[in-house]
Amino acid sequence: MPPSAPGQQAPFRVGLLGHGNVGAAFAPLLEARAAEIQRMNGRRPVLSGVLTRSRGDFDEILEGSDLVVEVMGGIEPAREYLLRAMRAGRHVVSANKQLLSQHGEELYETAREHDVRLRFEAAVAGAVPVVRVLEESLSATPIERIHGIINGTTNFILTEMTAGSTYAQALAEAQRVGYAEADPSDDVSGRDAAAKMAILARLAFGTPVHLDQVRYEGIEHIQVDDLQYARELHLALKLIGTAERRDGGLSVHVHPTFLYPGHPLAAISGPFNAVTVESEAITEITMSGPGAGGLQTASAVLGDVVSVMTGGARPPAPPLAMELIEDVQSAFYIHLDVADRPGVLASVTQVLGEHDVSIKSVLQRGMGEHARLVMVTHPVLESSLRSAVQRIGASNFMRSAPRTIRVIEEEFL
Amino acid sequence: MPPSAPGQQAPFRVGLLGHGNVGAAFAPLLEARAAEIQRMNGRRPVLSGVLTRSRGDFDEILEGSDLVVEVMGGIEPAREYLLRAMRAGRHVVSANKQLLSQHGEELYETAREHDVRLRFEAAVAGAVPVVRVLEESLSATPIERIHGIINGTTNFILTEMTAGSTYAQALAEAQRVGYAEADPSDDVSGRDAAAKMAILARLAFGTPVHLDQVRYEGIEHIQVDDLQYARELHLALKLIGTAERRDGGLSVHVHPTFLYPGHPLAAISGPFNAVTVESEAITEITMSGPGAGGLQTASAVLGDVVSVMTGGARPPAPPLAMELIEDVQSAFYIHLDVADRPGVLASVTQVLGEHDVSIKSVLQRGMGEHARLVMVTHPVLESSLRSAVQRIGASNFMRSAPRTIRVIEEEFL
Repeated sequence: MPPSAPGQQAPFRVGLLGHGNVGAAFAPLLEARAAEIQRMNGRRPVLSGVLTRSRGDFDEILEGSDLVVEVMGGIEPAREYLLRAMRAGRHVVSANKQLLSQHGEELYETAREHDVRLRFEAAVAGAVPVVRVLEESLSATPIERIHGIINGTTNFILTEMTAGSTYAQALAEAQRVGYAEADPSDDVSGRDAAAKMAILARLAFGTPVHLDQVRYEGIEHIQVDDLQYARELHLALKLIGTAERRDGGLSVHVHPTFLYPGHPLAAISGPFNAVTVESEAITEITMSGPGAGGLQTASAVLGDVVSVMTGGARPPAPPLAMELIEDVQSAFYIHLDVADRPGVLASVTQVLGEHDVSIKSVLQRGMGEHARLVMVTHPVLESSLRSAVQRIGASNFMRSAPRTIRVIEEEFL
Repeated sequence: MPPSAPGQQAPFRVGLLGHGNVGAAFAPLLEARAAEIQRMNGRRPVLSGVLTRSRGDFDEILEGSDLVVEVMGGIEPAREYLLRAMRAGRHVVSANKQLLSQHGEELYETAREHDVRLRFEAAVAGAVPVVRVLEESLSATPIERIHGIINGTTNFILTEMTAGSTYAQALAEAQRVGYAEADPSDDVSGRDAAAKMAILARLAFGTPVHLDQVRYEGIEHIQVDDLQYARELHLALKLIGTAERRDGGLSVHVHPTFLYPGHPLAAISGPFNAVTVESEAITEITMSGPGAGGLQTASAVLGDVVSVMTGGARPPAPPLAMELIEDVQSAFYIHLDVADRPGVLASVTQVLGEHDVSIKSVLQRGMGEHARLVMVTHPVLESSLRSAVQRIGASNFMRSAPRTIRVIEEEFL
């Protein structure tokens, strides 16, 4: 776009693919902000066409647009439309995390090849501008680690459970107030968060990460008493996505995780998203805000449109090879339901010791014939922890299956 | 910058003006990141010259640079150099909050006129990318309010005082660990924060705000017992900069302020910065991170350089006229040291009532012949509060001057 004085330039034509929650919020938002965007950037954005399930023609919209916004969701035909738009020299903006986490490299490569912009802020954390910040501000410093609460549904449910609800009650409440869908499995299984972590890891570390390469675990199995013990141990439970350099490789995963109170994500409650980025030069930066509602997502999409109009960031550079590491060190919370008889704690600690699991804190509580043993370990290789817990789980003093949850140690300030 | 394949392009020549803390950190950071920046953006940034107090020639540096970085500080010659660079068609990056808050319009206009980029992320919150987010992501939504902790020195001192130190002890500790300068007056008076709020208000609301138009109040007069009462009232004390739409105008000010625990800035402690942006479409977004150390600031400067290389945001649009409003509504904490005798509370509440000051909570505590009356009011016009407190202060039962501190009510979630 050549520079020239405001007002002399042709409108910037935006074609809209998809008219669900986000699309329905985007169209009026674009219109409401068009004059202000023109005042600030010289060109007036106008809606050049809308493709819904029943109306509109893709080729016609493509022909009449400078930029195509894709908020259809799903893989096809969204993928085909985005590729065709870029091949025709159109800029694109997408809010489609499933598509980007599974076909990101193909899309990025097409954008580079045809020298068009491909923006996707809305695919990760709604109105929280983590994509932009990773792309631009932080190119000045190598990133060491990202931790994110990037699914508002699960954070809402865990907040309710921290206040005493069961999982089922909290899920029902989330559905009642509109934070969870009728079929919540994509959210509560951790798969939605895993898709977002795949996108963030690619941006932060330059290595392609496919959704299938992200280990994830959901919150369906979290018990109310885990949260009660957590309170006594001053821990907050969140569904945390992590992407970090480890042993020369990259580790990307999503797990329910306990945080110490000093952690910047520990205080994020309700349906909010937040991402912490750590690097040597900047220490850590945390961004938080509402998760993806229709209007928030539409705002992020419009922000991307403006970013393209003003020359915004280029698509991610060609990928770097970095090994994906599965087995990494972490501290763990271990919950054991045991027979209340002498020698049990000794047996447990002996097995843990044989697997190099070192204990940081213990709570033991008698409950009639049973007792609860709740421990937090020092950091240990996950495979060692799993072996130890498997052996403990097979002991005749166990009354139910052991439960483990990751813990992020306070490393800050 | 025309698009072309990576590796084929000329280096991007960066001239550096100033070689203090930030400049000394910037030069090696640029070198360390040059290859990665080239990989991502196609051109390799190189340092084309450095101007220090004793070495270097501005005209020579200007001649040999595509972009000029100004980290000298102060008004002149920084202003003259930036203007000359832009008039010569060079992009500029500045970390100079004093300059931008006093001569911003002249700089923005020059950038627009010569169609060059003018970036200044590092002038506000160090590595916390609030400038970028205000410029781009949020152009999709009209901003209603910004609250910021944008001075790490004062936040560190208040954190120490919350833990029990006196102001003098906390300041000495801040100086010992390097968070406060030998002459801390620019920080503790609130003037540094006021300069940053002037810059943010211009970005968020489009209206020119000069440093001289920002009312500010520092933390020098904060007493340890204010913090003790605050704990009992569950309030956190921060030096807060505010810019908000009020009654069709704009209010910009910096004051020590009590926050309720639910506020996203209440948990920001130590030498950190954080900014919360509120708007209807996005609810609120909070960004936090370390305040300005040399390396953090240098990272932000380099992020701006990369942003220019990739086409980054344009300078702020020509200004909008909006009235600056001085007298706005706020809740207040009132601390009264009174004679402990009957009728005092009645007198106080009567005067408050006559000035439309409505009380939300009261603590009264006898201390021998004296008593402390600590109140938090509902929102009230500041002028009414001041009149009421002036009348109370003149009463014969007062044992020392009344103290007042603003309170931000919990409006969130």
